[in-house]
Amino acid sequence: MDVKSPPALERWPVAFDVPVAWGEMDAFQHVNNTVYLRWCESARIAYFEQTGLLSQMKEKAIGPILARVAVDYRAPVTYPDTIRVETTVTKMGNTSFTMKCRMRRAQALSVLVAEAETVVVLINYRTGEKVALDSAFKDAVLGLEAKGSN
Amino acid sequence: MDVKSPPALERWPVAFDVPVAWGEMDAFQHVNNTVYLRWCESARIAYFEQTGLLSQMKEKAIGPILARVAVDYRAPVTYPDTIRVETTVTKMGNTSFTMKCRMRRAQALSVLVAEAETVVVLINYRTGEKVALDSAFKDAVLGLEAKGSN
Amino acid sequence: MDVKSPPALERWPVAFDVPVAWGEMDAFQHVNNTVYLRWCESARIAYFEQTGLLSQMKEKAIGPILARVAVDYRAPVTYPDTIRVETTVTKMGNTSFTMKCRMRRAQALSVLVAEAETVVVLINYRTGEKVALDSAFKDAVLGLEAKGSN
Amino acid sequence: MDVKSPPALERWPVAFDVPVAWGEMDAFQHVNNTVYLRWCESARIAYFEQTGLLSQMKEKAIGPILARVAVDYRAPVTYPDTIRVETTVTKMGNTSFTMKCRMRRAQALSVLVAEAETVVVLINYRTGEKVALDSAFKDAVLGLEAKGSN
Repeated sequence: MDVKSPPALERWPVAFDVPVAWGEMDAFQHVNNTVYLRWCESARIAYFEQTGLLSQMKEKAIGPILARVAVDYRAPVTYPDTIRVETTVTKMGNTSFTMKCRMRRAQALSVLVAEAETVVVLINYRTGEKVALDSAFKDAVLGLEAKGSN
Repeated sequence: MDVKSPPALERWPVAFDVPVAWGEMDAFQHVNNTVYLRWCESARIAYFEQTGLLSQMKEKAIGPILARVAVDYRAPVTYPDTIRVETTVTKMGNTSFTMKCRMRRAQALSVLVAEAETVVVLINYRTGEKVALDSAFKDAVLGLEAKGSN
Repeated sequence: MDVKSPPALERWPVAFDVPVAWGEMDAFQHVNNTVYLRWCESARIAYFEQTGLLSQMKEKAIGPILARVAVDYRAPVTYPDTIRVETTVTKMGNTSFTMKCRMRRAQALSVLVAEAETVVVLINYRTGEKVALDSAFKDAVLGLEAKGSN
Repeated sequence: MDVKSPPALERWPVAFDVPVAWGEMDAFQHVNNTVYLRWCESARIAYFEQTGLLSQMKEKAIGPILARVAVDYRAPVTYPDTIRVETTVTKMGNTSFTMKCRMRRAQALSVLVAEAETVVVLINYRTGEKVALDSAFKDAVLGLEAKGSN
């Protein structure tokens, strides 16, 4: 018996489509490099909301901060277009977790326009200290990932 | 004898220079129309800080909201350039006041690139109700305007 | 007989829904004032495309520039939300035309969040001189407006 | 004799200070993650201009595109502040080169707020094909780096 169990993470449960705004293009006539980070941020926030992570911010002053972002730009984007943005958690550490963000043309999903990887750290906003991921958050991530399409 | 006293307002006491970022240009190769509002916002916030208006936000939950902005675009701006942004209060009402914002090329001050007029209303952030401008704020505005260069 | 003919303009033919991005909120926790101009710009560009105005830019170096924007902010917008953005031409002059832009909550259309009026001038990009609106453009505007929902 | 010659690259020749705009803060009250990419872009464009890279765009339709950006966020930034942004080329390959971007508090240079690494590819805008870095560009980079402060 050698059946692999499906991975518990990296199942891409959060996805949405975002229209490209004309004004997001820069003088090189392509969507500016900063806009991709906005798209991933929107996906990240949606993910956080679905795992209850942001509700802790008001109650306990504990919240996520972005420690690192790496973006690989694969294909230029121009107006008009619509981008399918997807995100998933790929690793959970002690006080941090890693997410991936995938951006494709919504009308031509075989065209990957960019990929990003982000590292998010949980901190106490009052003290600035790192905070361990608690089991409620970990369970919420696993539960959300279990709904993933991948 | 008919000597006019100088006006107590519209004396342009707040000014700063801001460099144009390449990425603020849009696909028409000019600085995008939204950027001018960012410049005026920066000037407005600086004005608010110099009159103590923002310190009331934490203490009393009273703060300014923008009710109206009108911008006249006079000349296109391109990278590289530096813009001199200036602002002044021109009118004080019961619960609101009017500001002007002037944007010129810092290296060629005779070139006006845009002018804006904004109406700011004071509200109670908890109740959403308008709040009367108090005499401390009015005095601070008059004091700041008295330092103006105009 | 005193039947009024329907107006040929101001029939709001262009409309779309745009999701609010979390990152469009500022430190006051509301969607920043500059974002409304981005929404109106997107509507304006869509309108221009549907009237063939932008195709003249490459062929004849004739194109629209924004001469004036006035925005009335009616209600604060917060994430998450979706905004219905609509635009229409209200006046056509010799070398310029006036547009209105209306922003409402897509899920609660009775809530007007902002209204804007813009003046657009047609210019020759090479000479900088104003250019008369030609009959092809005027007819395209009337044709597009005739499809309007109002 | 074992004297190391100074490195020809990574000498940080391009630097400027940029004021933080209030409106660049997001709802978490920190400068938004996308803004750091704008700062690095401004530094990159300044570097490109000083090496003549952009002048080729009009003449030969050859220009730089961003293939990858990785940002490590080291310390939150809040308004008001001024950021010293510096950039340098660290590697030159056949059709691409690598740059670093360093962001520090201008009034407290020991505080590193973020570091970024970017990979830039030279392409022919008409064909989309990669183009070899020519010796004129390489010499310009070496010449500019030689002026560096490091």
